[in-house]
Amino acid sequence: MQEYFIGIDGGGTSCRAAVADAEGRILGRGRSGASNILTDPDTALRHIEEAARLAFRDAGLAEDLSAASALLGVAGNNVGDAVSYVLARLPFARAEIVSDGLIALQGALGDADGAIAIVGTGTIFIVRHQGRIHYLGGWGFQVGDLGGGARLGHAALQESLLAHDGIRPGSALTKRILDEFGHDPKMVVDFARAARPGDFGRHAPTVVAFAAEGDPTALRLMRDAASQVDEALDAAARIDGGTGRLCLLGGLAEVYSAYLADRHRDRLAPPLADALTGAVELAVKTLRTGAP
Amino acid sequence: MQEYFIGIDGGGTSCRAAVADAEGRILGRGRSGASNILTDPDTALRHIEEAARLAFRDAGLAEDLSAASALLGVAGNNVGDAVSYVLARLPFARAEIVSDGLIALQGALGDADGAIAIVGTGTIFIVRHQGRIHYLGGWGFQVGDLGGGARLGHAALQESLLAHDGIRPGSALTKRILDEFGHDPKMVVDFARAARPGDFGRHAPTVVAFAAEGDPTALRLMRDAASQVDEALDAAARIDGGTGRLCLLGGLAEVYSAYLADRHRDRLAPPLADALTGAVELAVKTLRTGAP
Repeated sequence: MQEYFIGIDGGGTSCRAAVADAEGRILGRGRSGASNILTDPDTALRHIEEAARLAFRDAGLAEDLSAASALLGVAGNNVGDAVSYVLARLPFARAEIVSDGLIALQGALGDADGAIAIVGTGTIFIVRHQGRIHYLGGWGFQVGDLGGGARLGHAALQESLLAHDGIRPGSALTKRILDEFGHDPKMVVDFARAARPGDFGRHAPTVVAFAAEGDPTALRLMRDAASQVDEALDAAARIDGGTGRLCLLGGLAEVYSAYLADRHRDRLAPPLADALTGAVELAVKTLRTGAP
Repeated sequence: MQEYFIGIDGGGTSCRAAVADAEGRILGRGRSGASNILTDPDTALRHIEEAARLAFRDAGLAEDLSAASALLGVAGNNVGDAVSYVLARLPFARAEIVSDGLIALQGALGDADGAIAIVGTGTIFIVRHQGRIHYLGGWGFQVGDLGGGARLGHAALQESLLAHDGIRPGSALTKRILDEFGHDPKMVVDFARAARPGDFGRHAPTVVAFAAEGDPTALRLMRDAASQVDEALDAAARIDGGTGRLCLLGGLAEVYSAYLADRHRDRLAPPLADALTGAVELAVKTLRTGAP
């Protein structure tokens, strides 16, 4: 009997699945809604199953999930209780949950050593060196994620208040942001008090756009953020000697490729494949009967 | 009939009151518990009245609050609804509520022009120039209060995570902080997620102490924070030409006097009096019958 392997890339806005044969050839794909196992595990379970069924249907296969093996990459997977809850309720024969970073790494690098920097709302750096995985950063907005879109948007709000008070020179960027808040600092404060990382992050594209126009404040914020990413990439290079493939992933990847230090830009390479492909590869490698 | 004036310095941990005659001579003082009009206005009202009664008793006067005029300086007084609620329920003949910054300014400078920097858990800068009051900063921990104890403690936690990941060099300071969290970054993240500004601020004395010992990370954090205070003092000096008295107030005042740029250190002068005295002065000035 043919053995099927499902890779799943579960995120806060959508859940993507792909089904492959034992050689890792992708036969079909499916997509459903949000699958945040931490904040809403039951909805996540429903969407994981739905995406998997759609992938089987897309492949022209009977939707027999109970005979398949699945590997899920999910955001914030280091939340033990949520992982246990979801693992116990998945409709597959065998299943494993790993971090979304790990499937992204596998997709980008295949089985080779190297490093990825995921620069989106947050930031995390992952190195594979002689088969071992090293994580750097990724501790979230409040005390980490330096260089991420949320921190960048937050910095822009802070600069706007400093410009409002005449403490630092304003620019077209700070004027634009103050315009959005009716030039009332209290509105900025109220926004910030209730804002989640994604809310701060929605101001990052404004910084990126003004920096591209040469706005001095936006350029300073971009360079500060890029130098924080440079520092993390330096630390990654200390682990693996800076020899392997280096891939930038995430919503700010293209932006940062222009701001990073030359020593890192010279190493940049496009990812071999996406995270979903990485999930499929890991599913076949780790869940195949008799796999090590 | 003798007219009495009450000055009140209301804070998050205690409420202090002083009663004075029409010439501003302080006759008695009283102290009670927390008076945060924003988070708990009814308790604040109770403690304001209690502190005022104790001041009358201390002065050997009948406790007839209903004939007295009172001026209250309170934290976060720019919260319209809470101010209206409290003002309507105070037991005095006449009353006014102003910011805690304004009574601190009056206490420190008397009637002269000049500036104060309040550097505690947060930071705010107030300038009086040709009788006009200018406020700079003071927008709270989330997008302001640069150089304050909460931001300093927060920076120390962030540095500790960067040191943990090998992104920046560690030091005795980052080791001490990681020790406190069992060297588990997730514990730092959990703490930060729930922390209020005062919780971050409780790590500031550790930074101050290690900087005094020459710890390189602590020194960098102190210098970064001091340069943010320098920038705000530069903006204050642009308002008044940097000619008036400059007083540092708040829990970090003494610490910062060693880290500020020479151009500001040379201007520093001790405050003439404390905020409670300032409240009494303002009560007499603004509430005396026939006062302008």
